[in-house]
Amino acid sequence: MPSSKFINKLRPKKKKDKDKHRGSMTSLAETQTQTPSEVETRKEYIEASILSKVNLDALNEKDDSNTFKSNIENYIGTVKVPVGAVQVQVNGSHANGKYTVPLATTETSLVGTCNRGCQLINMCGGVESVVIKKQVQSAPIFHFESIRLAVKFNEWLGLPATFESVKTNAIAVVEEAVLVKLEHSVHGNCVYSRWYFDTGEAVGQNISTYATKEAMESILKEAPVQPSSWDLDVGLARNRQAATSLMIDGRGVYVTGEVVCPKEKVEEILHVSAEKLASFSRESRTWQLISHTAGSTYQSARVIAAILVASGLDAAAVVESHVGISDMKLTKNGDLRVIVTLPSLMIGTTGGGTKLPSQQACLQIIDLPEEKSREAFAEVVLAAVLGGEIGMCAAMISHHFVNKKKRTESETPSTSLPNGNSVIEEDKAGEAAAEKLNGDATPSEQVNGDSAPGEVKEETKKENKKDQSN
Amino acid sequence: MPSSKFINKLRPKKKKDKDKHRGSMTSLAETQTQTPSEVETRKEYIEASILSKVNLDALNEKDDSNTFKSNIENYIGTVKVPVGAVQVQVNGSHANGKYTVPLATTETSLVGTCNRGCQLINMCGGVESVVIKKQVQSAPIFHFESIRLAVKFNEWLGLPATFESVKTNAIAVVEEAVLVKLEHSVHGNCVYSRWYFDTGEAVGQNISTYATKEAMESILKEAPVQPSSWDLDVGLARNRQAATSLMIDGRGVYVTGEVVCPKEKVEEILHVSAEKLASFSRESRTWQLISHTAGSTYQSARVIAAILVASGLDAAAVVESHVGISDMKLTKNGDLRVIVTLPSLMIGTTGGGTKLPSQQACLQIIDLPEEKSREAFAEVVLAAVLGGEIGMCAAMISHHFVNKKKRTESETPSTSLPNGNSVIEEDKAGEAAAEKLNGDATPSEQVNGDSAPGEVKEETKKENKKDQSN
Amino acid sequence: MPSSKFINKLRPKKKKDKDKHRGSMTSLAETQTQTPSEVETRKEYIEASILSKVNLDALNEKDDSNTFKSNIENYIGTVKVPVGAVQVQVNGSHANGKYTVPLATTETSLVGTCNRGCQLINMCGGVESVVIKKQVQSAPIFHFESIRLAVKFNEWLGLPATFESVKTNAIAVVEEAVLVKLEHSVHGNCVYSRWYFDTGEAVGQNISTYATKEAMESILKEAPVQPSSWDLDVGLARNRQAATSLMIDGRGVYVTGEVVCPKEKVEEILHVSAEKLASFSRESRTWQLISHTAGSTYQSARVIAAILVASGLDAAAVVESHVGISDMKLTKNGDLRVIVTLPSLMIGTTGGGTKLPSQQACLQIIDLPEEKSREAFAEVVLAAVLGGEIGMCAAMISHHFVNKKKRTESETPSTSLPNGNSVIEEDKAGEAAAEKLNGDATPSEQVNGDSAPGEVKEETKKENKKDQSN
Amino acid sequence: MPSSKFINKLRPKKKKDKDKHRGSMTSLAETQTQTPSEVETRKEYIEASILSKVNLDALNEKDDSNTFKSNIENYIGTVKVPVGAVQVQVNGSHANGKYTVPLATTETSLVGTCNRGCQLINMCGGVESVVIKKQVQSAPIFHFESIRLAVKFNEWLGLPATFESVKTNAIAVVEEAVLVKLEHSVHGNCVYSRWYFDTGEAVGQNISTYATKEAMESILKEAPVQPSSWDLDVGLARNRQAATSLMIDGRGVYVTGEVVCPKEKVEEILHVSAEKLASFSRESRTWQLISHTAGSTYQSARVIAAILVASGLDAAAVVESHVGISDMKLTKNGDLRVIVTLPSLMIGTTGGGTKLPSQQACLQIIDLPEEKSREAFAEVVLAAVLGGEIGMCAAMISHHFVNKKKRTESETPSTSLPNGNSVIEEDKAGEAAAEKLNGDATPSEQVNGDSAPGEVKEETKKENKKDQSN
Repeated sequence: MPSSKFINKLRPKKKKDKDKHRGSMTSLAETQTQTPSEVETRKEYIEASILSKVNLDALNEKDDSNTFKSNIENYIGTVKVPVGAVQVQVNGSHANGKYTVPLATTETSLVGTCNRGCQLINMCGGVESVVIKKQVQSAPIFHFESIRLAVKFNEWLGLPATFESVKTNAIAVVEEAVLVKLEHSVHGNCVYSRWYFDTGEAVGQNISTYATKEAMESILKEAPVQPSSWDLDVGLARNRQAATSLMIDGRGVYVTGEVVCPKEKVEEILHVSAEKLASFSRESRTWQLISHTAGSTYQSARVIAAILVASGLDAAAVVESHVGISDMKLTKNGDLRVIVTLPSLMIGTTGGGTKLPSQQACLQIIDLPEEKSREAFAEVVLAAVLGGEIGMCAAMISHHFVNKKKRTESETPSTSLPNGNSVIEEDKAGEAAAEKLNGDATPSEQVNGDSAPGEVKEETKKENKKDQSN
Repeated sequence: MPSSKFINKLRPKKKKDKDKHRGSMTSLAETQTQTPSEVETRKEYIEASILSKVNLDALNEKDDSNTFKSNIENYIGTVKVPVGAVQVQVNGSHANGKYTVPLATTETSLVGTCNRGCQLINMCGGVESVVIKKQVQSAPIFHFESIRLAVKFNEWLGLPATFESVKTNAIAVVEEAVLVKLEHSVHGNCVYSRWYFDTGEAVGQNISTYATKEAMESILKEAPVQPSSWDLDVGLARNRQAATSLMIDGRGVYVTGEVVCPKEKVEEILHVSAEKLASFSRESRTWQLISHTAGSTYQSARVIAAILVASGLDAAAVVESHVGISDMKLTKNGDLRVIVTLPSLMIGTTGGGTKLPSQQACLQIIDLPEEKSREAFAEVVLAAVLGGEIGMCAAMISHHFVNKKKRTESETPSTSLPNGNSVIEEDKAGEAAAEKLNGDATPSEQVNGDSAPGEVKEETKKENKKDQSN
Repeated sequence: MPSSKFINKLRPKKKKDKDKHRGSMTSLAETQTQTPSEVETRKEYIEASILSKVNLDALNEKDDSNTFKSNIENYIGTVKVPVGAVQVQVNGSHANGKYTVPLATTETSLVGTCNRGCQLINMCGGVESVVIKKQVQSAPIFHFESIRLAVKFNEWLGLPATFESVKTNAIAVVEEAVLVKLEHSVHGNCVYSRWYFDTGEAVGQNISTYATKEAMESILKEAPVQPSSWDLDVGLARNRQAATSLMIDGRGVYVTGEVVCPKEKVEEILHVSAEKLASFSRESRTWQLISHTAGSTYQSARVIAAILVASGLDAAAVVESHVGISDMKLTKNGDLRVIVTLPSLMIGTTGGGTKLPSQQACLQIIDLPEEKSREAFAEVVLAAVLGGEIGMCAAMISHHFVNKKKRTESETPSTSLPNGNSVIEEDKAGEAAAEKLNGDATPSEQVNGDSAPGEVKEETKKENKKDQSN
Repeated sequence: MPSSKFINKLRPKKKKDKDKHRGSMTSLAETQTQTPSEVETRKEYIEASILSKVNLDALNEKDDSNTFKSNIENYIGTVKVPVGAVQVQVNGSHANGKYTVPLATTETSLVGTCNRGCQLINMCGGVESVVIKKQVQSAPIFHFESIRLAVKFNEWLGLPATFESVKTNAIAVVEEAVLVKLEHSVHGNCVYSRWYFDTGEAVGQNISTYATKEAMESILKEAPVQPSSWDLDVGLARNRQAATSLMIDGRGVYVTGEVVCPKEKVEEILHVSAEKLASFSRESRTWQLISHTAGSTYQSARVIAAILVASGLDAAAVVESHVGISDMKLTKNGDLRVIVTLPSLMIGTTGGGTKLPSQQACLQIIDLPEEKSREAFAEVVLAAVLGGEIGMCAAMISHHFVNKKKRTESETPSTSLPNGNSVIEEDKAGEAAAEKLNGDATPSEQVNGDSAPGEVKEETKKENKKDQSN
């Protein structure tokens, strides 16, 4: 595990320096589009990049079981989840520069499709993003003998003095638990409430729950009426719940961002027209509406889950975090505007498994600023998700037209995958680059939604039947 | 990686043998409730159990980067996710016996709360479960010049001959892609459709997408009218979408199960009354309704995500899979009936990362039957989720009453966590057992929702402020 | 049309007087349970009651087409919707006493089932209710050239000075448009906002839309950046949209209420046990969850639609208004607690068709206080809905057990209707009473969900086949 | 009330005749666009039209209270709801010709905005529409002692013989109750089911509920295990529930339709560009998504509620019926394609209040074919809704640009209303036409969402403050 001193050295103290540093980098994504003959240049890049400076040993060494003792019970070992990386330019309110994003997944092609989208983003100047708010709720429910008592209690909850009292008590228990809003209402003989906390760099579910409980117990005696009982609720707080209401009041970090891609660049990188992407995006809404998906995205869940696993956060938090909106539409002059909004991104840069060696290494690779690291992290995640959405939609669209052409023109339909691996050939260079970059990995030949290896080879299709899956 | 020959030896060929084998086991959960003085018995159990027979080396050895080459692009290493295990008795339509379930998570206390619930389940005879159906959808959308053409095409899609033709073509492409249902309708000039496949042991998203595309291209020429274009859609198929409609037609495996727990046993194990649990469950529905969660469960997302990561499946699939219903209600004589239904469990026993060494080891630990392994897997997952729901609710309820008592009676409120670590003391024996079992891990002192280590110690609370998180 | 002077005389100026007045009434519902021999007493009651004092001529006279000229275009005549009445005791924050509620519907048995529930309510002391808030949203959307400009605008919207400026400008345009809250956020290059107004006695959708537009145009020049365009949105405001988010932030009047019914009274009036009702309510949640209904009620839509039509409000507003929660659960001693919460009741006592003669007569029948008439109206509607829920659930439950018994015991299964008209016999007295009360109507022989007349008579069943419907 | 003989005479027996008849008509909408000097021509049209042949006396005469005796309990009189009419061309699978649609509402401008949209539709050749299916569900729930018994029962429900037996028994009870599909599943110890019936011309909720109950009681004895109890559920059937799942399996009539409007005509009639409408529609989806509306329409609820009230159907059925999709998008050459899909339109041509005099007169005005009258009705409703969506969106968009211009150019901004009454002037001719048509009504000066009369006059704005509402 790299010492924090080492990490600090890595981190450019002044934003200017950092930008300069980043400015000198040729991105991972960009190098992938270069021809194999440019390998030397690439190598130099790799040596100059963040990746080469972070101590990645933790990602490759044997794990010491003692490491995990406070993160798990009934420990029996570890699973090794492979990590791939993409690079994406972020011009955010807190993140600025080209960031390397580690994605831990066993799903072939996820990194590939995401990388494809990030390539386009980077060629178009990066994702402009902003964090609008960050907050996490806890939700105590109070039960009374009658609605009359509930109403009295509800009125008391609404007093400014009550808010201040809860706020003071909460901070006294956990310094990071800063109460910012209190919503409360009555349903018959119950008072239900949502307490919104800003919990700094931490995801904060536990902080806010704990602070709420302690603060509540401290001040309950001041209430004009006492509840017959009270509970902490997960449904109202939407703790690991993919609630449609997350779009209304958010949870965790609310982050939004966009990139405008000149139509020529869209064609060049994705081999799909901006118009077709905008149309596909528009139509998708109808089909998502029929299914009533929570939010309206394409593979935000895949990208976010991969980042959560890589960085030691709760993989289950993807259920809240993936709820958001992906929009692709044309600007007046026909360029492609891609917007992603994630109103409930449950991420943090501390707590959970973030301090475990390999997970910490992943976080270090991202190289977030020390100040407002959580906001910056959110903007980086958003940019990666945005890359994933672009890559996914392009793959969804291009597949069968390319296939059709190939079927008539050539003998290589076998390289065509349902979800768009017609893009493979163009990635060959990138694959070579990645090989060089990583030294020890051969990226998949497939760039596909969630394919099993080998599914695509026409000549092996029959034999593979038994093997195919997922 | 254990050779498949070795694995085959492990697997009792005859169900009878297996049951006998299992019958002789004292479960992991049960041993946890035993006193430390019973350690010797426990050790013998461990030696006789499945755990000791599976080659767990993969869970503890260094990873060879070549291993991952077809599962990831831009590989840079692996993250190590610690795995804890719980044991749960399943009396299912396909799974029968006591199963060890590996949970890969960095969330302290997840394994603990789940284990607590499984203890109760095991004491009450296990989870009765059944798989109702398994299917996965792909969803092609066809665009036409006018609604008139769309209607014609829609009628053609509804012909029995069309169904048969698609079915035959799909199987010809991928043997496992067995078309079982075809739904289709018209929205203006578009025809949208959902093709339901039974994909055997695989999750099957890719199989069904691929088969659909190939079959469609084969038979499209037979259609009376040709679409101007057609797409494969993720929203209508709900691929990685937490759609509320999943409750209606399901996706993946539809599995349901229940356990009836005598009220005395509930009190004994959970220190909460059956009545209080039933009441808590009832009230929760109201708060979930206000938030409009997709489904109505407590921590199904946590348990399922941990199993997906452990077994090499797509962690992002938790967004569909966690959508379900948890019910706790009293029987006529006041015992606790706990029901969990998961209509869209996206799991399989092949494909994705299931063949990677450490992930395969996890799957082997579960020791699923060779026949209908996916159905059996679903029943085991359901039982673990059911255990997690019981453990979570008990923790949610017990916390503050227990805390209150402790605050007045003792000096140890510090061990009380918001989400219920009043259960810790009772787990001490279990922890000791787990230490013995695993040899190299000290399970957390906390049994909590998603706490950071150290959050609970009163004496360290102030110091920890900076550290707390998540 | 009764002169307003007349109406004013009708309205007791002092609450005390009014209560006294009401206190002396024997309710409509109560009289229905009396035996036919008590008709004389009833007649006296009717003469003393509000009903006899209100000029109901408008409900029975020919309409003058000029009356409607500002409420409709392309006028061709009127449809006559029959109005039935129920009486319900309300002990609310604004409504106090026994209220007569007019229900305009052509659905046989709606008034009957609602009346049945109100009978129970009245026997149990009435509905305790409270209005928590009232507000209506308008939702302007602002489009910009880039997210950067959107963010700047969003920040400006968040300034206290902006809020004050909008508030002042809105009131200047329409006095009733009192801005109480402003929510706004960013999605890519768009700023979306929800402006919450308190609009006094009016439903206020139009007031708030108009005030928002005018205020926005006045202050837009003060903004640091100008939107390229802006719209007023119906989806975000949820104007005539049955959105699940209505449970979160409400719309119109948020009103909640409960009644606790001794278990003996439940049995006596409904012929169903309190326990069975609580269990039915509990189970219903599961089935509503599977369908993902917006809210969780039984026939709130029917009762509310009937009141909207009767009182000249927009019948379409039932889509927002019916979204709420109905809860039936046992108290500790086994009595039945029934709770209804309606967070988005779109009603008012002025505007729309409220001034049309027959509609105004209906409003006058309710006899709302002059002060806070809208809040009082909301509490009366809630009480009627609560009565409807009780009546509906009792009918749903009782039907088949009663039927079964009847089939074996007697020759009168014919009076049993699917949705519970086994209750008919007990209503005979009530029907007679109603006949007397109304002078000119024979209430239906059926008390059923939405039956067609004649559906129930066993002897006419076959002949009726062709006629049955709805 | 017109005798049915009279009505039959009205109805052209041969479709050809009817079309010819219709062909000779100048539509109501079209006449509105003509100049006042063309009044004579219009008068002739009116005399030739359906309107003049239907006996509309019921719409204008005093009601006889005996009329309503089987439709309501506790009758106290009627409310008169004014009816306006629009005309719309339908080229459907069952409806063909120009139909007059009666809208009963007190909401100023609803008929106006709807008429505006219908004008455009008629100029563009009418709405092409199709009924995809019609069905209504009843939903019995069966409770068992254990999941094992539930599974057995569920298997029995799945047998073809069971389906046939239920089908036969259901038809024996009510001839119209034709069972077409049976869905059933298990949740713990419960079996829940949805029985899909085709109920001919009737809405059929009651028919299907009654048939289900009777059929179930007949065949329950054949089941291998008996439920401990069973209920009929409204949540699973979604009886008067605005469920998001209605988009998945529908309820009532599933009808879809579209119109393609040349861009020049859009501009001419709506004074808004096709492009702007398509863009507004696209953006609306995002805001509806944030609110999670059930379906995605604009004012479908208003138009449908007005038709339900006019035709004697349950106004509350608007909660299911309004759930649908409205789409406006550009064709390749920039024309406007408008699509509306209503998957759960709960309408019928018999039952409920359809036989009441004024309601029957309204149904007669529509002049539906005798065969498949319900399907034809659904297509007419869809066309009117489509007109309402066009009119509403045009009003939403045009308002503030028009206003801005007016404010600087003239002294008549006062006539501009937030929701678009800048269109008023163009309607003047139409108003005059309507006056002539109806003889006795002055249509509103406003064409607005839900405005109160007088709200717009600048000079009276201040004075009106107290009066404004809704």
